[in-house]
Amino acid sequence: MIVECRDGATAAKGFYAAGVHSGVKKVKKDLAILYSGTPAMGAGIFTTNKVPAAPVIVCKKQLERSSSFQAIVVNSGNANACTGERGLNDAWSMVKMTADAFGIPETAVLVSSTGVIGQYLPMEKVAAGVQDAVSMLDADGHSASAEAIMTTDKFPKEVAVRVMLGDTQISIGGMAKGSGMIAPNMATMLAFVTTDAAISPGLLQETLRRAADHSFNRITVDGDTSTNDMVLVLANGASGIPAIQDENDPRYIQFYEAFEYVLVRLCKMIVVDGEGATKFIEIQVTDALSEENAVRAARAVANSNLVKTAIHGEDANWGRILAAVGYSGIEFDPEEVEIFFDDVPILRRGYAIDFSETDAKRVLSQKEIKITVDLHQGKECASFWTCDLSKDYVAINANYRT
Amino acid sequence: MIVECRDGATAAKGFYAAGVHSGVKKVKKDLAILYSGTPAMGAGIFTTNKVPAAPVIVCKKQLERSSSFQAIVVNSGNANACTGERGLNDAWSMVKMTADAFGIPETAVLVSSTGVIGQYLPMEKVAAGVQDAVSMLDADGHSASAEAIMTTDKFPKEVAVRVMLGDTQISIGGMAKGSGMIAPNMATMLAFVTTDAAISPGLLQETLRRAADHSFNRITVDGDTSTNDMVLVLANGASGIPAIQDENDPRYIQFYEAFEYVLVRLCKMIVVDGEGATKFIEIQVTDALSEENAVRAARAVANSNLVKTAIHGEDANWGRILAAVGYSGIEFDPEEVEIFFDDVPILRRGYAIDFSETDAKRVLSQKEIKITVDLHQGKECASFWTCDLSKDYVAINANYRT
Repeated sequence: MIVECRDGATAAKGFYAAGVHSGVKKVKKDLAILYSGTPAMGAGIFTTNKVPAAPVIVCKKQLERSSSFQAIVVNSGNANACTGERGLNDAWSMVKMTADAFGIPETAVLVSSTGVIGQYLPMEKVAAGVQDAVSMLDADGHSASAEAIMTTDKFPKEVAVRVMLGDTQISIGGMAKGSGMIAPNMATMLAFVTTDAAISPGLLQETLRRAADHSFNRITVDGDTSTNDMVLVLANGASGIPAIQDENDPRYIQFYEAFEYVLVRLCKMIVVDGEGATKFIEIQVTDALSEENAVRAARAVANSNLVKTAIHGEDANWGRILAAVGYSGIEFDPEEVEIFFDDVPILRRGYAIDFSETDAKRVLSQKEIKITVDLHQGKECASFWTCDLSKDYVAINANYRT
Repeated sequence: MIVECRDGATAAKGFYAAGVHSGVKKVKKDLAILYSGTPAMGAGIFTTNKVPAAPVIVCKKQLERSSSFQAIVVNSGNANACTGERGLNDAWSMVKMTADAFGIPETAVLVSSTGVIGQYLPMEKVAAGVQDAVSMLDADGHSASAEAIMTTDKFPKEVAVRVMLGDTQISIGGMAKGSGMIAPNMATMLAFVTTDAAISPGLLQETLRRAADHSFNRITVDGDTSTNDMVLVLANGASGIPAIQDENDPRYIQFYEAFEYVLVRLCKMIVVDGEGATKFIEIQVTDALSEENAVRAARAVANSNLVKTAIHGEDANWGRILAAVGYSGIEFDPEEVEIFFDDVPILRRGYAIDFSETDAKRVLSQKEIKITVDLHQGKECASFWTCDLSKDYVAINANYRT
């Protein structure tokens, strides 16, 4: 049984965190450090954008070299993206100054940035911030760190769970930042997850990849994918549990479920906080021929500006949903399709439309809406999470730099 | 030399048009007929959406059966999409009633619809409208017909050109409707082109396909593709010119250029009238390894909500442009990329950014903006046309049905 608790990235034993204001941003916290008292196994997944930010390049290199890590340093307010050689040097400097402050090897530090693209980091401020953060590290520092990684986020995103693996209780906690530019295959979205479980690095990486496919790669705010996104995980084994070495270990299924639970919860928070979002929307495609088909169809609906604006306007425009499935690229028979808003049938097979506008409106007026598209083809299903498209999205993004 | 004239779908000899109010819409014109006095060669391209509207199915069938056509009947206000068997029967009825009114074979009529999805056509009103339109046919009826195919369009879209092919002057004219849901591979977008040139049906179809690849498949308003889109062409030979039989005919290159010119002009009008659009944006990608790469990169930038909102806000956020190229799927070296707004360099190789915000703002404050992304890889280029994303887009689409 997965028990959620009010905590975050320091829920797991042996993890410490801090969040400070270094001066990259004008007033708000802008620098976070996550630290494990003992070396932890690390894993990461990264944006597929061909213009990866400097910290993405550095983290990939670090994960190639080693699987043992103790610290993650993150700044917000500046993405250190499209900054060339100098930006790369700056990212390596962040690694070095963090390693030096802790007296750990440089290979044990991961680095992350989020914010404006194309400006150099003010490295003196960052250096002072790192010193500050190290001195303020706290076993209860999760909230400060979650706050320090925010950009246009309206609230910090944290979650933590406890679960029994055999006789031993382990914890998994994490924090994320999201808002605009959220889309499948990693968007401007950062997440950092810690656990005191012990797990082999290969299996940790595989667990992350699989869980991300069911969480971070199934959310979208505006279909853009960013230069900076990453999800990093540290597993330090401080719970004292014997390491999970492979997926046949009976404890693994419980670990995986708890891990995916944490990622899904963080994802949903990111969508709820999508720029300008007023509604959380789940698009569920059922009875597809394959999970891949279900994902493609759900993604097309979730990415459709026309669907998202219609839901914003609380307009039961099911034709736009069907049209989006129509251009998703999957083969299907439109006359077999049924569409539901929550439990209210909107479209029945054979284009039979006989719904009460009142019932539809009741569902659409909610803050959370589940749209089900039943293809009546096979047995596979998939969900995508998104938000509505409002005038505030435009207002926020029309003047982001200024 | 291509000479543009103030005319439309009746510019070419032997074509007649009418646009009337049948009652599908409350007040405005909603039914158009285009007619050629003599049989014309026909060609068409259609939406790739897997939920094709009834008229799309009917037109494809008609073009399989015959290449000789005399009439196109079009209604607006109702898309006759997602209407199943009954909708298909209704579309065939529109063909039959038009054929009967002219005393021509049913195989000589093409049909098209645009408007709300999922509602049945009021066939009695349509029937009366067809009679009306036939009785009002006029060699100068282009404006009325262009008006009758509009939905949320703010202005009718028409163009006509005259060009000499050898000794003979021919005309090509057309009309289109666009607005929301415009995206590559056909969106809710209709266009009807007529010419008094004579050309073999196979070459006409190939000409249409090729010109559409350089026009209709290069525009985007919101990335959605619709259930109804089509471009139809009729070539009646009334200019008296001997038929162009193959593309080696020296006259073909001039015909093709004039034909593509007409399609591009219609496309640009569609983008200018994009829902909520305040700016026309050309995204040009140059020095790509292949035209396909250039198109992919330009499409990704043109479809990015973040780019479109930034331009709406007149914010020189070049990082979003580069990020969009980054997720377009093409391989390239970001450090080689240069970006220009009109002739103002914004990003130079090696991420060198040294532009005056004043100059950038001057360009972005214009109604028409050309953004050039130079990949410095090869010799191929392509342009995509789009518009900005404004709050009005949201306002228009949040309550379309109501």
